[in-house]
Amino acid sequence: MEEIKKVLAGITSASQEIKERALKKMDGLLKPIGSLGELENIAVRICGMTGKLENTITKKCIIIMAADNGVCEEGVSACPQEITQIQTINFTRGITGVNVLSRHAGSDIRIVDVGVNGTIEDDRILSRKVALGTQNMAVGPAMTEEQMYKAIRAGMEVVEGLVMKGYDLLGTGEMGIGNTTSSSAVLMGLTGISSELAVGRGAGLSDEAFLHKKQVIERALDVNRVNPEDPFDVLRKVGGFDIAGLVGCFLAAAYHKTPVVIDGFISSAAALVAYRINPLVKDYMIASHISAEPGFTVMMKEIGLRPFLDLGMRLGEGTGCALAFSVVEASLKILNEMGSFQKEKLDDGFLVDIRS
Amino acid sequence: MEEIKKVLAGITSASQEIKERALKKMDGLLKPIGSLGELENIAVRICGMTGKLENTITKKCIIIMAADNGVCEEGVSACPQEITQIQTINFTRGITGVNVLSRHAGSDIRIVDVGVNGTIEDDRILSRKVALGTQNMAVGPAMTEEQMYKAIRAGMEVVEGLVMKGYDLLGTGEMGIGNTTSSSAVLMGLTGISSELAVGRGAGLSDEAFLHKKQVIERALDVNRVNPEDPFDVLRKVGGFDIAGLVGCFLAAAYHKTPVVIDGFISSAAALVAYRINPLVKDYMIASHISAEPGFTVMMKEIGLRPFLDLGMRLGEGTGCALAFSVVEASLKILNEMGSFQKEKLDDGFLVDIRS
Repeated sequence: MEEIKKVLAGITSASQEIKERALKKMDGLLKPIGSLGELENIAVRICGMTGKLENTITKKCIIIMAADNGVCEEGVSACPQEITQIQTINFTRGITGVNVLSRHAGSDIRIVDVGVNGTIEDDRILSRKVALGTQNMAVGPAMTEEQMYKAIRAGMEVVEGLVMKGYDLLGTGEMGIGNTTSSSAVLMGLTGISSELAVGRGAGLSDEAFLHKKQVIERALDVNRVNPEDPFDVLRKVGGFDIAGLVGCFLAAAYHKTPVVIDGFISSAAALVAYRINPLVKDYMIASHISAEPGFTVMMKEIGLRPFLDLGMRLGEGTGCALAFSVVEASLKILNEMGSFQKEKLDDGFLVDIRS
Repeated sequence: MEEIKKVLAGITSASQEIKERALKKMDGLLKPIGSLGELENIAVRICGMTGKLENTITKKCIIIMAADNGVCEEGVSACPQEITQIQTINFTRGITGVNVLSRHAGSDIRIVDVGVNGTIEDDRILSRKVALGTQNMAVGPAMTEEQMYKAIRAGMEVVEGLVMKGYDLLGTGEMGIGNTTSSSAVLMGLTGISSELAVGRGAGLSDEAFLHKKQVIERALDVNRVNPEDPFDVLRKVGGFDIAGLVGCFLAAAYHKTPVVIDGFISSAAALVAYRINPLVKDYMIASHISAEPGFTVMMKEIGLRPFLDLGMRLGEGTGCALAFSVVEASLKILNEMGSFQKEKLDDGFLVDIRS
């Protein structure tokens, strides 16, 4: 906990001054003011994060936290639990969705076993296994305090390592059968909204299984008596190791003033926990796509972020981050490369101000 | 008109058979069925367009139709008309929004002067000038039949040239002060919806100027008595040369079975005209971003397309296409590069079916 406290104390806001200077520069470019909408906002926000007016993305990485969830024994998922281990190994083989999309985006991936139920020995997968999956939250807390802190620290460690290696844009992904269940539980635990609003069909449940999933989550919240005012309490009792690991990623990204992209429903659950722990982390978060899970929109509203890709995706793994990276990089190029009224006038006197 | 008739007669649907085969392949990949949402749909649709199961984008181009609008003399725009010419020349200098974003996307641009009010002599700008801007539609038809066909043919010619050179993904952009006015008029002329729903503030009008813009458009529709059943009649009387040029692009792209991305409000007006001329062209269109102009959503609903980028952009130029290109390419890579259950099982017998 000491290490986590140190990081929490070291998180400061993005620079308002640099954001204002970036916005002034943006408003001087050859376009009607504000006409590139959110693209302008992303660029200005990143300037505020890094404290620099000119930013170039040189190295990108999507962190994939893989872990199993004890609640699977309640039959909340359409997929067998073994898929977590199988797909975690598949990430090393270049054949998964996030592999294809991160290659397309020119991004690396970092796979972290933070609690997969099975033995994984592979140099390409960082082993930070807290346990062979969480306990079943429908009968008691998903994890102990010590386990939770260990998972959070794993995320912090990974981000620190990447930042030290010069990565300047991060993404958050996950793999864990049953983790839409834990994410919905975290959302309900933190906000008190109903299962009708917070729970979706995950990878594809039948009507009956969907109803059962909602009942299991309600039972978990009831059994565990979570304290909505304490994000650590909610995370520990009804979260997952993957979510906890990603919480560590968001906290450390803010600490290191490095932009971090949120993927879908599970990443957003972690982002919401991190935001509740320290609202300043929001300054370093960039939303990507609108997940098909119904609770996702509530999470974005709670944090106050605006996703910009609407593809009805619900695969997870960090796939939305990979698609968003290209837009994030484009936003910075707008600020760096577009002509401005003043600059061009000095060149040849030909241009007039096209701003409205 | 003969040339246009020939193209219209030569347009056929995308291949339903190839789409079905592509969907079957997509459903066999290592992911829950449908979990990549619209990304899957785009890939499947492109297979149907080209008639091939494996598609790789090798050359991309955004076509920018530049033209002036006579209706500007009514004071409908926040920008002076000269900006059309200035910005058209700026496209050759690499400093505009679409320059930056197309470089980022690895796309070329093709600038076409289809009716700019001024002399432009530059090898890098294709001269297909129909006139020095349209006539003022608030007092009579914007153009003659001959002028309209000339502009449409210009678009068709450009697409044909690009297809012959091996371009396999096209985008549609434009530059023309006053063209949100003509686009709103086209939308109202074709659908009969009110100016409240169809007209926006363009590059940034005051309340008073916004009211005036709506009145001017209503007058134009009144004076010209457009026939909503005849898209050519609507285009000729209240459209613009840029819109007509883009209509030609959409028709020719469908004829050549080449995917063409729609940008924002003006491109969508052209797409709607083309769709009304021949509904089959829809098969070859891909929507990109949700324009900030209010009438945009109506256009998408009329055609039946689903944009996937929501950035509140309203710059035009083809900027939304440039951002969308990366997603379109990503969709094809998913189909080409992701592992499938069957294939991987044959390799090492390790993988199980992770599909729900």
